[in-house]
Amino acid sequence: MAERAQASHDDPGVAAVARRGLMLVLSSPSGAGKTTLSRRLLDSDPVIELSISVTTRARRNGEIDKRDYHFIDHARFDAMVRNGNLLEWAEVFGNCYGTPREPVEAALAAGRDVLFDIDWQGTQQLREKADRDLVSVFVLPPSIPDLERRLRSRAQDSDAVIRARMDKASDEMSHWAEYDYVVINHDLDQAFGDVQAILAAERLKRERQTGLSAFVRRLQADL
Amino acid sequence: MAERAQASHDDPGVAAVARRGLMLVLSSPSGAGKTTLSRRLLDSDPVIELSISVTTRARRNGEIDKRDYHFIDHARFDAMVRNGNLLEWAEVFGNCYGTPREPVEAALAAGRDVLFDIDWQGTQQLREKADRDLVSVFVLPPSIPDLERRLRSRAQDSDAVIRARMDKASDEMSHWAEYDYVVINHDLDQAFGDVQAILAAERLKRERQTGLSAFVRRLQADL
Repeated sequence: MAERAQASHDDPGVAAVARRGLMLVLSSPSGAGKTTLSRRLLDSDPVIELSISVTTRARRNGEIDKRDYHFIDHARFDAMVRNGNLLEWAEVFGNCYGTPREPVEAALAAGRDVLFDIDWQGTQQLREKADRDLVSVFVLPPSIPDLERRLRSRAQDSDAVIRARMDKASDEMSHWAEYDYVVINHDLDQAFGDVQAILAAERLKRERQTGLSAFVRRLQADL
Repeated sequence: MAERAQASHDDPGVAAVARRGLMLVLSSPSGAGKTTLSRRLLDSDPVIELSISVTTRARRNGEIDKRDYHFIDHARFDAMVRNGNLLEWAEVFGNCYGTPREPVEAALAAGRDVLFDIDWQGTQQLREKADRDLVSVFVLPPSIPDLERRLRSRAQDSDAVIRARMDKASDEMSHWAEYDYVVINHDLDQAFGDVQAILAAERLKRERQTGLSAFVRRLQADL
């Protein structure tokens, strides 16, 4: 792989050290701010891209193939499972969803990072297959009244739907201890800064900077 | 331990989650910028403090006991070694230097972080005793001409002294692979931002946030 600049080193005069990309998982109960944090990260950081899932469910109004999902049929999905082409998958109400392996591996090898907006069940499967490439962050709401406020403010959902989401939140939150990092979303700017710091630090991990051996050898040769 | 605010959450209205402090080691060949980075971190971050070593060497002009070192005699030093009161120690030209254990453990338990400005030999000893509390960062110069420029600019050292430092740099740099993170000091502001991101991220590690179990239990009780 050619050496490439890290996102955090914008000066083109600086020859950055090659690195392997990472897989950043953001999970949270719905209403804790995960989707907003994901969108801000994708908008502000040119080196991270969103993993696009495959799904067998029908395309909804406004959804675009290859941007929101790769819409495929059950035969194709089953073949992907059989051939080990999915890093994780699940069936929900008869519809199948999965994360294709190939684009993720291509991104990591090229030094680009991949963002996953998935729940604890997907994260568990991903962890088994990815391990050292995986960086997992769990986002918690600061309080339950705050969680309820966010669920109510964002949609025209009925009380019953909101109650169902709140009930599910308790189960989702119980999995916080499986994650590498925990961010409490007291304030969106602060929480976004936390996620940015995690990403910046993980990019500086020695084991990800695959060009360091060569870099230090060149330094030593110049002494 | 009472819950306390993290440095990054300045809003006093936000009840932050209790956490265990961490030990941040910065190592580098001399001239790579480590001392400047340490000073900026101590000046800007109220929750990290510098570990003050004990030493048997004589106090020099301008040095202050308990600020620069704890100046102690050989008998006292030997007793500290015997009693396991030092996290790491070394003898250099007949003078002994060491890191007292007690203030470090008190700081960590109170959720404060401790900065260590030590070399790879001290870091190896610290790693054996601290392990999960330790976060180690190696700072590399961007190039050898840059390293030499910094060594020449900062002091009235003779060519022979600078040459000796350069020779030592190669040996020191060979230990980069023992560290968790590697920061290349192309630019001081960028490198300082890198160190700040590492510190911010490590404070968000799930295993350091000792108050999370209780925090999530309270959230779930409110649902």
